[in-house]
Amino acid sequence: MTPDKRYRPIDAMVYPRFSGIRTFMRLPYVTDLTGVDFAVVGVPFDTGGTFRVGARFGPEGIRSQSTLLRPYNPALKVPIFDICSGVDYGDLPVIPGYLPESHKQITEGAAAVFASGATPVFLGGDHSVSLPLLRAAAGKHGPVALIHFDSHSDLWPAYFGGKDTHGTPFRRAYEEGLLDTARSSQIGLRGSLYDESDALMTTEVGMQLITGPELHEIGVKETIRRVKERVGDGPAYVTFDIDFVDPAYAPATGTPEVGGFTSAQCLQLVRGLAGLNLIGFDLVEVMPPYDPQGNVTCLLAANLVYEFISLIALSRKNKT
Amino acid sequence: MTPDKRYRPIDAMVYPRFSGIRTFMRLPYVTDLTGVDFAVVGVPFDTGGTFRVGARFGPEGIRSQSTLLRPYNPALKVPIFDICSGVDYGDLPVIPGYLPESHKQITEGAAAVFASGATPVFLGGDHSVSLPLLRAAAGKHGPVALIHFDSHSDLWPAYFGGKDTHGTPFRRAYEEGLLDTARSSQIGLRGSLYDESDALMTTEVGMQLITGPELHEIGVKETIRRVKERVGDGPAYVTFDIDFVDPAYAPATGTPEVGGFTSAQCLQLVRGLAGLNLIGFDLVEVMPPYDPQGNVTCLLAANLVYEFISLIALSRKNKT
Amino acid sequence: MTPDKRYRPIDAMVYPRFSGIRTFMRLPYVTDLTGVDFAVVGVPFDTGGTFRVGARFGPEGIRSQSTLLRPYNPALKVPIFDICSGVDYGDLPVIPGYLPESHKQITEGAAAVFASGATPVFLGGDHSVSLPLLRAAAGKHGPVALIHFDSHSDLWPAYFGGKDTHGTPFRRAYEEGLLDTARSSQIGLRGSLYDESDALMTTEVGMQLITGPELHEIGVKETIRRVKERVGDGPAYVTFDIDFVDPAYAPATGTPEVGGFTSAQCLQLVRGLAGLNLIGFDLVEVMPPYDPQGNVTCLLAANLVYEFISLIALSRKNKT
Amino acid sequence: MTPDKRYRPIDAMVYPRFSGIRTFMRLPYVTDLTGVDFAVVGVPFDTGGTFRVGARFGPEGIRSQSTLLRPYNPALKVPIFDICSGVDYGDLPVIPGYLPESHKQITEGAAAVFASGATPVFLGGDHSVSLPLLRAAAGKHGPVALIHFDSHSDLWPAYFGGKDTHGTPFRRAYEEGLLDTARSSQIGLRGSLYDESDALMTTEVGMQLITGPELHEIGVKETIRRVKERVGDGPAYVTFDIDFVDPAYAPATGTPEVGGFTSAQCLQLVRGLAGLNLIGFDLVEVMPPYDPQGNVTCLLAANLVYEFISLIALSRKNKT
Amino acid sequence: MTPDKRYRPIDAMVYPRFSGIRTFMRLPYVTDLTGVDFAVVGVPFDTGGTFRVGARFGPEGIRSQSTLLRPYNPALKVPIFDICSGVDYGDLPVIPGYLPESHKQITEGAAAVFASGATPVFLGGDHSVSLPLLRAAAGKHGPVALIHFDSHSDLWPAYFGGKDTHGTPFRRAYEEGLLDTARSSQIGLRGSLYDESDALMTTEVGMQLITGPELHEIGVKETIRRVKERVGDGPAYVTFDIDFVDPAYAPATGTPEVGGFTSAQCLQLVRGLAGLNLIGFDLVEVMPPYDPQGNVTCLLAANLVYEFISLIALSRKNKT
Amino acid sequence: MTPDKRYRPIDAMVYPRFSGIRTFMRLPYVTDLTGVDFAVVGVPFDTGGTFRVGARFGPEGIRSQSTLLRPYNPALKVPIFDICSGVDYGDLPVIPGYLPESHKQITEGAAAVFASGATPVFLGGDHSVSLPLLRAAAGKHGPVALIHFDSHSDLWPAYFGGKDTHGTPFRRAYEEGLLDTARSSQIGLRGSLYDESDALMTTEVGMQLITGPELHEIGVKETIRRVKERVGDGPAYVTFDIDFVDPAYAPATGTPEVGGFTSAQCLQLVRGLAGLNLIGFDLVEVMPPYDPQGNVTCLLAANLVYEFISLIALSRKNKT
Repeated sequence: MTPDKRYRPIDAMVYPRFSGIRTFMRLPYVTDLTGVDFAVVGVPFDTGGTFRVGARFGPEGIRSQSTLLRPYNPALKVPIFDICSGVDYGDLPVIPGYLPESHKQITEGAAAVFASGATPVFLGGDHSVSLPLLRAAAGKHGPVALIHFDSHSDLWPAYFGGKDTHGTPFRRAYEEGLLDTARSSQIGLRGSLYDESDALMTTEVGMQLITGPELHEIGVKETIRRVKERVGDGPAYVTFDIDFVDPAYAPATGTPEVGGFTSAQCLQLVRGLAGLNLIGFDLVEVMPPYDPQGNVTCLLAANLVYEFISLIALSRKNKT
Repeated sequence: MTPDKRYRPIDAMVYPRFSGIRTFMRLPYVTDLTGVDFAVVGVPFDTGGTFRVGARFGPEGIRSQSTLLRPYNPALKVPIFDICSGVDYGDLPVIPGYLPESHKQITEGAAAVFASGATPVFLGGDHSVSLPLLRAAAGKHGPVALIHFDSHSDLWPAYFGGKDTHGTPFRRAYEEGLLDTARSSQIGLRGSLYDESDALMTTEVGMQLITGPELHEIGVKETIRRVKERVGDGPAYVTFDIDFVDPAYAPATGTPEVGGFTSAQCLQLVRGLAGLNLIGFDLVEVMPPYDPQGNVTCLLAANLVYEFISLIALSRKNKT
Repeated sequence: MTPDKRYRPIDAMVYPRFSGIRTFMRLPYVTDLTGVDFAVVGVPFDTGGTFRVGARFGPEGIRSQSTLLRPYNPALKVPIFDICSGVDYGDLPVIPGYLPESHKQITEGAAAVFASGATPVFLGGDHSVSLPLLRAAAGKHGPVALIHFDSHSDLWPAYFGGKDTHGTPFRRAYEEGLLDTARSSQIGLRGSLYDESDALMTTEVGMQLITGPELHEIGVKETIRRVKERVGDGPAYVTFDIDFVDPAYAPATGTPEVGGFTSAQCLQLVRGLAGLNLIGFDLVEVMPPYDPQGNVTCLLAANLVYEFISLIALSRKNKT
Repeated sequence: MTPDKRYRPIDAMVYPRFSGIRTFMRLPYVTDLTGVDFAVVGVPFDTGGTFRVGARFGPEGIRSQSTLLRPYNPALKVPIFDICSGVDYGDLPVIPGYLPESHKQITEGAAAVFASGATPVFLGGDHSVSLPLLRAAAGKHGPVALIHFDSHSDLWPAYFGGKDTHGTPFRRAYEEGLLDTARSSQIGLRGSLYDESDALMTTEVGMQLITGPELHEIGVKETIRRVKERVGDGPAYVTFDIDFVDPAYAPATGTPEVGGFTSAQCLQLVRGLAGLNLIGFDLVEVMPPYDPQGNVTCLLAANLVYEFISLIALSRKNKT
Repeated sequence: MTPDKRYRPIDAMVYPRFSGIRTFMRLPYVTDLTGVDFAVVGVPFDTGGTFRVGARFGPEGIRSQSTLLRPYNPALKVPIFDICSGVDYGDLPVIPGYLPESHKQITEGAAAVFASGATPVFLGGDHSVSLPLLRAAAGKHGPVALIHFDSHSDLWPAYFGGKDTHGTPFRRAYEEGLLDTARSSQIGLRGSLYDESDALMTTEVGMQLITGPELHEIGVKETIRRVKERVGDGPAYVTFDIDFVDPAYAPATGTPEVGGFTSAQCLQLVRGLAGLNLIGFDLVEVMPPYDPQGNVTCLLAANLVYEFISLIALSRKNKT
Repeated sequence: MTPDKRYRPIDAMVYPRFSGIRTFMRLPYVTDLTGVDFAVVGVPFDTGGTFRVGARFGPEGIRSQSTLLRPYNPALKVPIFDICSGVDYGDLPVIPGYLPESHKQITEGAAAVFASGATPVFLGGDHSVSLPLLRAAAGKHGPVALIHFDSHSDLWPAYFGGKDTHGTPFRRAYEEGLLDTARSSQIGLRGSLYDESDALMTTEVGMQLITGPELHEIGVKETIRRVKERVGDGPAYVTFDIDFVDPAYAPATGTPEVGGFTSAQCLQLVRGLAGLNLIGFDLVEVMPPYDPQGNVTCLLAANLVYEFISLIALSRKNKT
């Protein structure tokens, strides 16, 4: 796409950042992805939540705070829209209360995005949406490495007898062969568990485990090193549950766990993934009704999405 | 039950009302209903919600604010626990995200309460729970008159192709013959609709309709008269969606509609039902995460439940 | 415009109302107004505020809550989109902190909407924006009758020596001959004043005054009668400052005044304007940062806008 | 005091109302009351609270919102500071946690104000402070008529065995002979009670009782008539517990009761007291930590205080 | 107690964690402590508070958030209820506003718990409650080592002339010989003081002082080493004032001090106490009315209590 | 000034810290600065804000939380009022919406303070106020070194074509020669930019740049060293934009940027400036309407101001 035809945010010097329709970064709302490099896609589904709910308003909340973002990322030195054409694709259709039907719709919707060649960044919704998203990702790329930031493994076999909740997506993904677990990592796990065996699930399915306390111990740089070493050159999918972050920085989430990480550490971790073959991203479990007045959770989430698209731009730049 | 064996709230002169475990009115948490006159029963299920969610925390929120309530109702002149033995029965088990399974559990749980002879007051949850509750009610009493306070009819045939949501319970109940529609009324309906035909659903199924604007026009007393005239002597079930109330008085609900009613009008309406043969109650769609600091929604809900149990006490008194 | 080409909200049965990009009622965001009957237009300017500020976020807040609205208005019996093609026009460009420059931009932007033949509904912004909006309105229609709901007259000659604030727009409009004051009314005025003379400004410029206490005394119906009698057949412009409403119903505003009106009264007042020749509307002084969790102010504002567009539909219907 | 020496608020046309030190109405903070007509006096004591606490921040919250008030009262047609010299006297010293000691300090502090000839308006604090205030009032004026707006009688003999709480001040005042009960009224009482006998306490001590439901029934004007008829010409003291108001209008209070009154009704009731011999006022139980973002409770409280001082001005005017 | 008779939380796979009566961790509410290993005990007293108040709602707030906790502690590798029988003992009776009387009741109530052999974890309340709790602790165990996390020493001789406030408990405890100061430490002290001598009080009474800035300097591990070295083998009592934590992590407290610690540091510090002879715990100064929507303070407090009971389990395990 | 004539806070042992008129630290409100060492001065102007607004309430919010502060600073070992006489000077007059006029008033007001010999600490207001403040500072001291804590450089040439906003003050100051850029530093800059060139502005004007990520890398002590080395002995002015801090610690600001600093780091940085020739301070962009219930932003701001005045005291002490 020629620079002058690129989709980019509207001009903040004409329309101040508090004005205009709330798409992500005030990008054009576009559903024809021809020539588009990345697409931000809402997945406002939260029927999988087992404690607090309301992640259906996550995409709205993140879009609202994203208006503060500007097009140049100084930490990664990326002028995003000098390289990329990016859009807000709107939300995928879902049916609240109907999990299997919605998951089917989500997979179909996501598959269309993957098919277009644009790299998607999905905004959840609860973590159950990662399962249909991974189905679409693997449909295009085959089994993918998972880079999973979370305070929970979400590898439980079932919850209340139900196989599909926000605590089970990666168990299902593993069973369905969507993951290349040998190249995958779960990072930040912490908090109380039901059973000793819960603590072993990650390694049992073959993924690398870097617990929360371990991350505090070894630091961000060593964590990045270990994760990247594992991933190698193959396709990788990043899933970021906002409860990876400490509740002081991200109170608005479904099952918050104290003892977490700062916003600065999160930025550094995501930026550290530069150079990998990242084929898709999701950011889940943002729950605006629990965000106090300053909207710190939504703001942090918007910034993390911004780092994701910076990584996409960086990678597109390096390709050319 | 002899007075000294009656279940009643703990003594506020020994344990101040801000202290102690949060059961409703700090009643004993009891699951053997032998000799019990009324039971407050939580139904923390909200998978049927089509807009805002979080009514699963409704029972907790209502119990929390109910600690302010004292045992004598001066408006109805009822010393509740001089007449009644009352308990908090806890919550019925549910499976979040799994509507049919949960509805089955709710019906079973509610049937056990009805079977005990105690009059139940159910705390929702979203309005979808009224369907399994009515199944239990009709299982004992046959088709019941519905006294339905709401800003919506909840008679939609389906939502997003789904037959079970918080917008459809009374359509299903009607189809299943759980309602004696000729003796039933819907009160307070208002707000925008999808279609002109939506406005006709109440009368099409044979219920009396008193819309919100009509209630504003004719007043509370005439409304009570019309409702009671319809009900007659047969069994009646009261369902109160907190969105009947104006959002100024009850902001914390799933699909609020402006142009509603005051707390004083609500109290007067409920008290006006004295003398009817009321076999069960529910209070639904209270959503604590949306209740600002003063918790006015939960407080009003707790007071409405208090009027319900006052009506039960009044009726038990008159029987003796 | 043929029915199948009409702009209308996206289908809530496919995209639940909590999903999708937040335009007003999830109407298409369209800036070519050919064949369009009404346009909702944001004016996120708040440099005129003299106490609390933040009305620049008013359009976002109102759009967010407007997703709850459905297309049929049962009170006025209007199926809006069976009659009308309606769009969200986005926001007019403004320069925060630069009042004269912004007012110029607003007048130009609004003039384009008026010129298109679509009836505009403007979302403020503080009340200073009514001045440039009236300049555009009068530019097309000549001096207009003002139907002004507010707790303040906004007729002050100046504030802190400044001639342009949210307290002065109608003084300027009057001086510039934009108003047909003989056909105009100010409704709901109340609250403390600087001086006895403040209370006389409305009638001095030739408008009808119905104070807040008077409205409480004579009631809604008589108020409507007096206002309509004044207006006659000529073009009228409705400006609604959300502080007309009581702070219990609309806390999120710049200079709240207690002793106000209920949401039900507001709906009735606006609906009562049916039949007048209404050429434009604005709804101002909504300040989302002050709206507690339930967002009652933004919700009420969205509903008032809904009544405005219902009046437009009603009038277009009657014309055909 | 000559007009040019009168204490009055700072000029809002030089110092906008959001600026400056937060005294009541931005009046001078003055402790020498020579020549002063009225003094606003904080009494930040809340150890008497039996449920929610935090009324110690009441004076701060009320002062904060009072900056919106302007000097001319159009409803009563009183230009307050053309008649009166008024000040903010600051807060009386208290010892949190130490009730008898604090009550002693409050009586002494209040006595000094009464002695000066200025009419005091006290800002609570919980309702326990009315007892030491009445001791000071009666110390100067002898037994006074009580005009008591509240949802509770606060005539309980004791609470948890303690004789001094916010539920007992008027029992103590009655026992100490501070009240002329034959000229006194309690207005607005409602909400659940411990016992049937609680409902009789008002009349047993000889005061007139107008319950909440009664006030709803007979209306504001008849209520005023009955209260004034009782009071006669003797000295009267007004005590206004903010929980008289409905929680929708005043959520931030210690023991809220639904079924209350609107802000418009409150203003009308207070204004209706014009013409009585009012020797002092208090406004209690405002609890800012429970006031959501819009601060509606504090704002209403500030407006009620404004009506109190308007009554003082009116009475001083009529004297001259 | 045989495993099948152990008190443990209700099964989260049948009753989802958002449901049920809010006891701590949804443990049984039990007051007969025979065979019980630990008891969580509410002490909802806050009359000792000198600035913000409302800690009387601390036990409710902590219980509410504790429902998220699961029975296995992976950091300490403790399956709590495979080892322990634990209960929620409810709240001790108190008389708000009456400090000496309440302290007496608290000592008596706590003594009964200590006598039972169960290890108590007390939920405040303000810090004044540690005095009566220490009286009970010392009544059983003799003078105890104090491990005191706080931003204040609470060793002031008096406040406003009052000897009993939340700023004085450890001065009184010291004077009464309840503390073995040679084995005691105060950790985290910081914030402005009245006087230079305030900074010396800790060491003057013979306790080890590790100030906030010092802890930042030497780190968590060295701090643990120093504290444990001091304590030795004798009985130790842990008191944790939530204001030890930074206000970003725990805003809802009475006298917050910036420059504090993260949730991860707190967890590490408490876990570091493993191996000591810990005979009791309290967690104080949690003030739910000041906790914004995400309830981060109550959540952190619940997690700290969870670490306390994990330490108890660990110690019981090691004994067997 | 003799010790007994010094202005100091009122005695917290007589007037508890929750009581009294809200000046900074409850210092006397004094406008004659004869003999005064430092003056806290409000500058409630926010027309320069380009995103969120409301910093006009910053001085009120900071004063409110400052009541918690005590007179002895243990970290710096300074008994402030044994050395200094300090006052609250109130707010400078401003005209909301009128930037040039207000800037003129601010410069005049600030110049009077500088002229008195008292060291001023200004409370913003948005960052645009630093320009008129620097005009006054340079008016007395000549070009000053700037020590600028912020997440933005505020060196943009213009915004929306406007030369005066909160994003441009230091560009103007630089152009006007108010700054000795060779001795100046900008610390903490981070967050997305419009353009690569934005990242170069600091060094282009000759200031030292320590970005946010750099500060995270090199640490607080090295940062202090570099800043102080630059400043040398000449006069320096400290400007602290609260968005330097992470939004978890300071959510209530106009353009928050994640990845920031903790409160402990901020305190250490400010204390580290001891020994420099500091001639004035400002603390800007505090926006109380966005501060959730715990008021953590205002509390931190008040503490930073406290460190500023501690530095003043330290420097006055060393002079004598």
